[in-house]
Amino acid sequence: MEMSNALRASVLVHALPYIQKYNHKTVVIKYGGSAMIHEELKDAVMEDICLLRQVGLNVVLVHGGGPEISETLKRMGKESVFKNGLRVTDAETAQIVQMVLAGKINKDLVKLINNKGGSAIGLCGLDGGMMEARPKDPSLELGYVGELTAIRPRPVSALLEQGYIPVVAGIAYDDEGNVYNINADTAAAELAGKLGAECLISVTDESGILADKNDPASLISRVNIRTAKRLMEEGVIGGGMIPKTQCCIEALKAGVKKVFIIDGRVPHSILMELLTDEGLGTMFTKN
Amino acid sequence: MEMSNALRASVLVHALPYIQKYNHKTVVIKYGGSAMIHEELKDAVMEDICLLRQVGLNVVLVHGGGPEISETLKRMGKESVFKNGLRVTDAETAQIVQMVLAGKINKDLVKLINNKGGSAIGLCGLDGGMMEARPKDPSLELGYVGELTAIRPRPVSALLEQGYIPVVAGIAYDDEGNVYNINADTAAAELAGKLGAECLISVTDESGILADKNDPASLISRVNIRTAKRLMEEGVIGGGMIPKTQCCIEALKAGVKKVFIIDGRVPHSILMELLTDEGLGTMFTKN
Amino acid sequence: MEMSNALRASVLVHALPYIQKYNHKTVVIKYGGSAMIHEELKDAVMEDICLLRQVGLNVVLVHGGGPEISETLKRMGKESVFKNGLRVTDAETAQIVQMVLAGKINKDLVKLINNKGGSAIGLCGLDGGMMEARPKDPSLELGYVGELTAIRPRPVSALLEQGYIPVVAGIAYDDEGNVYNINADTAAAELAGKLGAECLISVTDESGILADKNDPASLISRVNIRTAKRLMEEGVIGGGMIPKTQCCIEALKAGVKKVFIIDGRVPHSILMELLTDEGLGTMFTKN
Amino acid sequence: MEMSNALRASVLVHALPYIQKYNHKTVVIKYGGSAMIHEELKDAVMEDICLLRQVGLNVVLVHGGGPEISETLKRMGKESVFKNGLRVTDAETAQIVQMVLAGKINKDLVKLINNKGGSAIGLCGLDGGMMEARPKDPSLELGYVGELTAIRPRPVSALLEQGYIPVVAGIAYDDEGNVYNINADTAAAELAGKLGAECLISVTDESGILADKNDPASLISRVNIRTAKRLMEEGVIGGGMIPKTQCCIEALKAGVKKVFIIDGRVPHSILMELLTDEGLGTMFTKN
Amino acid sequence: MEMSNALRASVLVHALPYIQKYNHKTVVIKYGGSAMIHEELKDAVMEDICLLRQVGLNVVLVHGGGPEISETLKRMGKESVFKNGLRVTDAETAQIVQMVLAGKINKDLVKLINNKGGSAIGLCGLDGGMMEARPKDPSLELGYVGELTAIRPRPVSALLEQGYIPVVAGIAYDDEGNVYNINADTAAAELAGKLGAECLISVTDESGILADKNDPASLISRVNIRTAKRLMEEGVIGGGMIPKTQCCIEALKAGVKKVFIIDGRVPHSILMELLTDEGLGTMFTKN
Amino acid sequence: MEMSNALRASVLVHALPYIQKYNHKTVVIKYGGSAMIHEELKDAVMEDICLLRQVGLNVVLVHGGGPEISETLKRMGKESVFKNGLRVTDAETAQIVQMVLAGKINKDLVKLINNKGGSAIGLCGLDGGMMEARPKDPSLELGYVGELTAIRPRPVSALLEQGYIPVVAGIAYDDEGNVYNINADTAAAELAGKLGAECLISVTDESGILADKNDPASLISRVNIRTAKRLMEEGVIGGGMIPKTQCCIEALKAGVKKVFIIDGRVPHSILMELLTDEGLGTMFTKN
Repeated sequence: MEMSNALRASVLVHALPYIQKYNHKTVVIKYGGSAMIHEELKDAVMEDICLLRQVGLNVVLVHGGGPEISETLKRMGKESVFKNGLRVTDAETAQIVQMVLAGKINKDLVKLINNKGGSAIGLCGLDGGMMEARPKDPSLELGYVGELTAIRPRPVSALLEQGYIPVVAGIAYDDEGNVYNINADTAAAELAGKLGAECLISVTDESGILADKNDPASLISRVNIRTAKRLMEEGVIGGGMIPKTQCCIEALKAGVKKVFIIDGRVPHSILMELLTDEGLGTMFTKN
Repeated sequence: MEMSNALRASVLVHALPYIQKYNHKTVVIKYGGSAMIHEELKDAVMEDICLLRQVGLNVVLVHGGGPEISETLKRMGKESVFKNGLRVTDAETAQIVQMVLAGKINKDLVKLINNKGGSAIGLCGLDGGMMEARPKDPSLELGYVGELTAIRPRPVSALLEQGYIPVVAGIAYDDEGNVYNINADTAAAELAGKLGAECLISVTDESGILADKNDPASLISRVNIRTAKRLMEEGVIGGGMIPKTQCCIEALKAGVKKVFIIDGRVPHSILMELLTDEGLGTMFTKN
Repeated sequence: MEMSNALRASVLVHALPYIQKYNHKTVVIKYGGSAMIHEELKDAVMEDICLLRQVGLNVVLVHGGGPEISETLKRMGKESVFKNGLRVTDAETAQIVQMVLAGKINKDLVKLINNKGGSAIGLCGLDGGMMEARPKDPSLELGYVGELTAIRPRPVSALLEQGYIPVVAGIAYDDEGNVYNINADTAAAELAGKLGAECLISVTDESGILADKNDPASLISRVNIRTAKRLMEEGVIGGGMIPKTQCCIEALKAGVKKVFIIDGRVPHSILMELLTDEGLGTMFTKN
Repeated sequence: MEMSNALRASVLVHALPYIQKYNHKTVVIKYGGSAMIHEELKDAVMEDICLLRQVGLNVVLVHGGGPEISETLKRMGKESVFKNGLRVTDAETAQIVQMVLAGKINKDLVKLINNKGGSAIGLCGLDGGMMEARPKDPSLELGYVGELTAIRPRPVSALLEQGYIPVVAGIAYDDEGNVYNINADTAAAELAGKLGAECLISVTDESGILADKNDPASLISRVNIRTAKRLMEEGVIGGGMIPKTQCCIEALKAGVKKVFIIDGRVPHSILMELLTDEGLGTMFTKN
Repeated sequence: MEMSNALRASVLVHALPYIQKYNHKTVVIKYGGSAMIHEELKDAVMEDICLLRQVGLNVVLVHGGGPEISETLKRMGKESVFKNGLRVTDAETAQIVQMVLAGKINKDLVKLINNKGGSAIGLCGLDGGMMEARPKDPSLELGYVGELTAIRPRPVSALLEQGYIPVVAGIAYDDEGNVYNINADTAAAELAGKLGAECLISVTDESGILADKNDPASLISRVNIRTAKRLMEEGVIGGGMIPKTQCCIEALKAGVKKVFIIDGRVPHSILMELLTDEGLGTMFTKN
Repeated sequence: MEMSNALRASVLVHALPYIQKYNHKTVVIKYGGSAMIHEELKDAVMEDICLLRQVGLNVVLVHGGGPEISETLKRMGKESVFKNGLRVTDAETAQIVQMVLAGKINKDLVKLINNKGGSAIGLCGLDGGMMEARPKDPSLELGYVGELTAIRPRPVSALLEQGYIPVVAGIAYDDEGNVYNINADTAAAELAGKLGAECLISVTDESGILADKNDPASLISRVNIRTAKRLMEEGVIGGGMIPKTQCCIEALKAGVKKVFIIDGRVPHSILMELLTDEGLGTMFTKN
């Protein structure tokens, strides 16, 4: 990048009021799915997280899975069956999901953050009894796809106090020792609520909420709960954006002050959203 | 168990002086391999760990792998090749080992401890930059089998202070982002040294050091470093006991006060070793 | 005691859930009178207290007097006069009671606990201005038999925080510098209330509340406040059990969650009550 | 006292530099024997102690016995036998001494300090395992007159940190559960050393060290260790002043910076010594 | 001063109950104007402040200006114009006032306190963003004479916790970077309210509120808010006493428990007011 | 500034390793003289300070005087006499210097930092007894130009711990109550040493050390102590750069790790020096 150091310094100074605004505040970043594919973009997200922590924010990363789960299942001879877009998860599949999420993706993200100079520790919902769940589908046809029945954020807040960046995988348990796969958007929204987070940022591979899904220029940069619900009813918000939007609404109701869906395909979109005067994606507000 | 409560109370009282002796001391327990196979024995080990924590000891569990790694490698189409008893580990194998150790075995142990009423958090050497390594074999024929070059125990000691039971998998990294499989005995011995542990207990599936390996009654209950070295030279200590013995010696040199090899096939052998007047296995001493 | 260490370990493990239940909770033990006579039983009570402290409970011992007071009074030429079962206490007698309770019995219990490996500190209600009183009998015929007008638990809670076992004698004072003998059951009940104790255990020399006082098999193992009051009215609860029962009721009203009268003649009855599945005496409940 | 408030204020201001000099410093005051007899003087000593604590000093009071011990022994039918000025102390006598010192005199001083607005807590050497002893006289003819073998000041320093005034009676124990009477001067000197005290003040019923014991005007206001030893050899220091002088020397050797013997018959002599420009008694110095 | 040390000690002891009453309480002292002129009196006030801090009070000094401001203005060629007793303050005058108050008078008081053995730190309302203001006179004819719109006491309370004596000059600012002169009585009253002070003492050069301003013997030693308002209406309280009285009333309303106007011409009048049984000036009470 | 937010984010990320390097380190910035004249540059310096604090550095600002002192002296009718480049300072001049430095320049800088969103507190060497001095010139011809005899950094370190930016004026005192003007370079160097600072930055109105003072391109970007001394001897370093160079050497000897002279005429030169890969001025090193 050809740029004078004078210009660089000036950019830093322009970020100052934004940095001051978020000082000591907690920001939960949800990151997963297709947004995780390109290594360069993943690098940029981890750099953003390190920078935010360094300038005084308490950053928590909640991540989903993505293609590695399907690949591993396939290599281990388990066929993936989907129902309404959710993976039918038998006990063995749940254990493989736990293994890939908590052992591979989680620790790889930890390694990447540490590599950028941060200090991350990887947890899943089993650690410190953090997330309890029951089957999301009462008919049990989905198997061990779970919904949270209890969330205890102390391991995360203890690590924040010690200066670490907690990285959390959405795996939960029940009293009988079963494990459940928890949707990362849901886990992030509920954790943000319990932590009293200032901000929840969902990093996706879309631009945000579009008024016309074929026109990227039709981005809705700000939407309140009532309008978001109407847009879902009218079908303007559809597909994978529906559960994301619902999680955003839940997070607002749980007391999170600012909730964003941003475009992970744009490098450093998290920094742009938090530390410049320009919003990139869609911001959800209570009213 | 048919036993009067009066007798039970009396047993508790007899344990008191042992409990007082270890109050606020750190005990590192290494657990792995064949000793992990029987679910009932695993349960008993986790109960012992919970009890020790509850009565005032700082307990750290360092675990190895065992058959699950080979099974998963096999299911994923990777053939296991061994050289001098060590698995030849290419980059892909190292990643599968990480996944199974840190995502499956580690979190299953965490779940089990929490299920017994304890509060565990699972880490590997990537978390908080805890363990750095380089190839153990300079000829690189073994691939990513590592030896530790740096160990930073702060994540473990921070969790101990917060009241958690840290559970640690032997995965390390290098500057280039490679991951290494670290022998659990080595990881436990070095971590115990850095933590200033009072005690290192290696739970195995043997009785301890036998003077005659065919005679279980020939157990050597106490051995010092000099004698242990001689027994290795003379071949009395052989096979898998050699690296274990070497780790015990390393731990003593690193300042750990008491080092034991005990028999994990005996239920609650850890408690028997620490909280009763009878030693079960072999105790290593400096002189 | 002939018992294998395997069995011993198993007993310890069975106590674990009970220990976890009481972790960091405060337990006030009232001990006095005839239950203090046999040295062996006293030893067993002190061992129980040390063990409870060691496994994570905050233990406070409140003790009464017993025969040593009468003996000392007699040796010092003071005749003991009783009225309705209470000792008529002139100023000189009150000072002798203070001397024996706070200087002899209290410090002997401290010494005994320390001897068992605990760390006790002995206090009376004068220390830190802990207990203020006025004459219990407005006609003043009983003299310096007091009832508490104020209780300030900070010295006890400060010592608990520092890891000590506070041992408390029931001596109080008034503004004019007089000292009063306070019934130990009352002192224990009020102190337990102020400390927000989980549990009050009154160690007596009876089995508990008996439905038929001549039939030890008629033990009532659980009684609520309403029933306890009725049993007093009906005379089923009589004699020395009446003030004990009243104190148990007061403690429940002051917020103590569990209140027991147990049999001090059974060795380690405190441990049996708290750390096994079998209750020995009578448990008082609110409803 | 007829004095204008202007004058009073002026006096306070003149004490300021002295108060500043002793800020946060520890002062051990030894008080006992004949100096304890007059109630008014005792009141004045307790007022001095409260004031010193209030203006920022850490004050510890170590007390001896005096006539109450002999009286109680006599009333209980024990005859006092002395040998070289020390009471021959059989086991029963030791227990009576414990009872009177720790239960009567100690708690009365506590009550008196609390009455003056201070907050005292009374301890003896049994509390928290503070003082261990063995027989002073190897021939055992003196019985349970003890000399200290170990002193652990944590109970005292913990109470000082909590804002209390610790009041300490010189009772110690041994491994076999025996109790010993410890000379209060010795206990005060050793405790002052272990606490790193700035100052030890021994309040006596004499003016200090006199060059001519018949001439009160011959007070030696300052003496170093070498001279003090010479004066003992020459017989100038004699009688009860010998053990006091020896304790003062021991305290200096143990690191106490300033050691005084002052006249308890002069009201508020402690304040005069510490907070005015005039020394009343004899100050001991190292060189 | 000819006085025996015995008498001195007795005076100290008589102050004890007063010292205990104010222990750990915050006292704000307002000092300024003519009361600052005589160096000896200023010395006495600083000694009082040091003593109060030393004996356990949290002391804050808020000071005004006095003749040095006028002198400096005059020397710098600025003529002082007054309107209704308030200095017409243009921007340049405001800056000179800041310079003299915060740089000369404030730091001189700091130096004086430190010289008496205290440890003071000088602040003005600019430090830590402590005091925000707007023009007191909406017509702006008075210029930068300000009234407080926000007061943030954290710098003062942080310094109190660290053991310092904060010395505060009444300079405030607005969003546009203007500085304002704040009446010291107002600043002291509002700061005392925000700090939850026990006591506000206004040191003046008058005896207090006089029923007949020509008769010093007509001092009103105690007045409640209702009566004070009536006395202002009736003209009994007039001149410079009106704003002082209003500030006293404001302080009471803001929760300060005791408010005094005392005579700074009497040496050590602060000590006399707080630490003896004689009030010197007028005490304001709520009812 | 026309720049995309993507570019801005990228700049922030490039600063991350520099920010991490200085995390929790102390940086003392000396700022004064001609470098303070232009308001825009002053603004830029204050922004740099706020940003450094915000991203985790402990920043201390030590400032000098400049033209305001001369102006005020002139307006107050004091003529400035110089001797060897140092102002001859009689007692009255010293007091005016104190007033201008500590009351005007210091508090204006505090206001400016607070205005940029930081939180500064202004001190001089009188506060908390921070700086003691004696006359620099033994012949006393210079009057109250001082050299430091003691420096006590606790007020500064206490404010850093509380999150404030301390701003320090170079005014000191002696036992007799005189005040001294202390050269700001010296004050900064000594304070940096006592604080264990990582870095001292002297912001000047020159480019740094020039090999040829007429050729700005001849900047020496790195110089060690030995060479710096030689350059002074050879006259390459001359004029006002001599005392600055000497202070840089003193700071290095006092343990400060990195010492810079940078050009305050370049906006944000502090940020450029610390947070980019380009050094602007001259860096001094030990060897």
